[in-house]
Amino acid sequence: MTQAESMVQRVALDVMGGDHAPEEVVLGGVQAARELGLGVILVGPEATIRDEMAKYDLSGLDLTIEHTEDYIRMDEHPAEAVRTRPNNTMSLCMRLIKDGKAGSMVTAGNSGAAVAAALLGLGRIKGIARPALGTALPTASGNPTLLLDIGATTDSKPSYLAQFALMGAAYMRGVFGVPNPRVGLLANGEEETKGDQLVQEAHKLIRAMADQKAINFFGNVEGRDIPAGQVDVIVCDGFVGNVALKLSEGLSKMLLGTIRNEIYSSPINQIGGLILKGAFNKVRAKLDYEEYGGAPLLGVKGVVIVGHGSSHAKAIKNAIRVAHQAASQGVPDRIAEGLAAAGSAAAAE
Amino acid sequence: MTQAESMVQRVALDVMGGDHAPEEVVLGGVQAARELGLGVILVGPEATIRDEMAKYDLSGLDLTIEHTEDYIRMDEHPAEAVRTRPNNTMSLCMRLIKDGKAGSMVTAGNSGAAVAAALLGLGRIKGIARPALGTALPTASGNPTLLLDIGATTDSKPSYLAQFALMGAAYMRGVFGVPNPRVGLLANGEEETKGDQLVQEAHKLIRAMADQKAINFFGNVEGRDIPAGQVDVIVCDGFVGNVALKLSEGLSKMLLGTIRNEIYSSPINQIGGLILKGAFNKVRAKLDYEEYGGAPLLGVKGVVIVGHGSSHAKAIKNAIRVAHQAASQGVPDRIAEGLAAAGSAAAAE
Repeated sequence: MTQAESMVQRVALDVMGGDHAPEEVVLGGVQAARELGLGVILVGPEATIRDEMAKYDLSGLDLTIEHTEDYIRMDEHPAEAVRTRPNNTMSLCMRLIKDGKAGSMVTAGNSGAAVAAALLGLGRIKGIARPALGTALPTASGNPTLLLDIGATTDSKPSYLAQFALMGAAYMRGVFGVPNPRVGLLANGEEETKGDQLVQEAHKLIRAMADQKAINFFGNVEGRDIPAGQVDVIVCDGFVGNVALKLSEGLSKMLLGTIRNEIYSSPINQIGGLILKGAFNKVRAKLDYEEYGGAPLLGVKGVVIVGHGSSHAKAIKNAIRVAHQAASQGVPDRIAEGLAAAGSAAAAE
Repeated sequence: MTQAESMVQRVALDVMGGDHAPEEVVLGGVQAARELGLGVILVGPEATIRDEMAKYDLSGLDLTIEHTEDYIRMDEHPAEAVRTRPNNTMSLCMRLIKDGKAGSMVTAGNSGAAVAAALLGLGRIKGIARPALGTALPTASGNPTLLLDIGATTDSKPSYLAQFALMGAAYMRGVFGVPNPRVGLLANGEEETKGDQLVQEAHKLIRAMADQKAINFFGNVEGRDIPAGQVDVIVCDGFVGNVALKLSEGLSKMLLGTIRNEIYSSPINQIGGLILKGAFNKVRAKLDYEEYGGAPLLGVKGVVIVGHGSSHAKAIKNAIRVAHQAASQGVPDRIAEGLAAAGSAAAAE
């Protein structure tokens, strides 16, 4: 690898994003450099970053700092903050990508701001009408399912969902190595006549793309199919996807919490709990959203991964791994190629 | 109670609805009559019903039969089947309500057909634009939350959601005895500016109803709040509600199944599983959708309860209990009163 190639493969990391920034974010960056051998550019206030870095042995690691003081808080209005304060950490990450100094970026900050910074700093892929945030969810089959959109775009038009289908397939091919991803359309019934008007129209467009072999369309899937894992990609409007994602997180927590309370309710139950400790840890690992490394923002000219606000170091490390993988596979280029192959069926309204 | 009052309180039961019809449905009717002392009208083919009834000791029970041969299958087109075959079991149940022979009805059959049969046979409450199916979900707080709509109405307008809020509150008051139900609006964020266009507009209407003291509006809630139980009613479009309900069912099943597989994976784990058997049963009971007795169809001139297609006898019995309770409390009249109290804020577009 030449030095130029190596630089392009570096991942820009927004050190100030997320509930556990900067400590856990910097640690995640250090772990990615040490355990995965990746180059990471730490973006944020230099003094803060140096304080965190001082905690670790960094010998031989490819870690650099890009200094900026400003960053966007979780409760700020995303678009306005991005527009008026171009030196925030996220916008600087985007510039590093645009200038060829980084191949991708990771943030666990305000996801609305990440979308705004990416749209402003990188721009949309030609022909893509709206970006989509995806998230790889754990499933019963053991294979993750990418759900998109989970909140970048609400009030979608049918053509947006058709484009999300192409983008999701390109991502699952590039990052998870699924050769011919099966794509499902989220609906309120499996029959193709089901769905609201949006989904019924989107179904026809995605069917037309499948007829041109541009996509492997499984058909409609229902809410119960999200955790089942029989498809690789599930497409929906950002409002619905956001509700589904947060419901999944809340329900998993509620269920495991209820079981934990029962275990602690009596000494004999605690013994049972001790015996099953390993089993419960396996279940938790299987359901671990941190394993799959954050939410890709698809449709922009660059690789942007948005981690969960509650990300700890492990989640940041995995997000960096995924960002590097997506950049190496040229996911944005693959999306552009998919769009071209689908022709008019995927044309934006 | 006079004989006329007693007749009005009888519950009409669609014996041919659901995956386990007629066996489990008739048994549920028998249990409701025996354990709850309710009057049940078994609606379906008389010979079939008599065969099932012959299995049980029915002495002293208020069970009657209304004969009809025809019934609607799960895979039929609902509206067409209801329109062209007026002697199907569901439509006959509606006629029994309309003629004052029953106070309510229960079916575990095709829910689309139940909606169509109710609209045709009973009609909408004056001023209500669209009906909504609700379902009481188990929550972490121990109090159920009514989610509506779960599939009767897609492509809602803002005023529909405002009316769903009133209907849900009337139901939770009447059936669950909640004095002043807190109503949440499902959105992709808690701030009132969140939501797609539909939800943003609905938020303003429900806020206006709250200003007139017609409703106790909690504000926006997110997907994670559905299993949390801090509100009594959650309002959404039928497409979103259907996805959320099926996702909840699928995820609960997936989680408990994963735990079961881990327990059976080794002899020592099986011992842990035996010790925790009681605890797991409690968790399952807490999550038991069958306890809350099916989905009320709100907005029509009569009490209609739609059970899950997979309902066993217990679920049918509980649905009959809920139907009787809703009829005794005059839920449709309470909805009409709520609509009047809300005035123009709840007027249909």
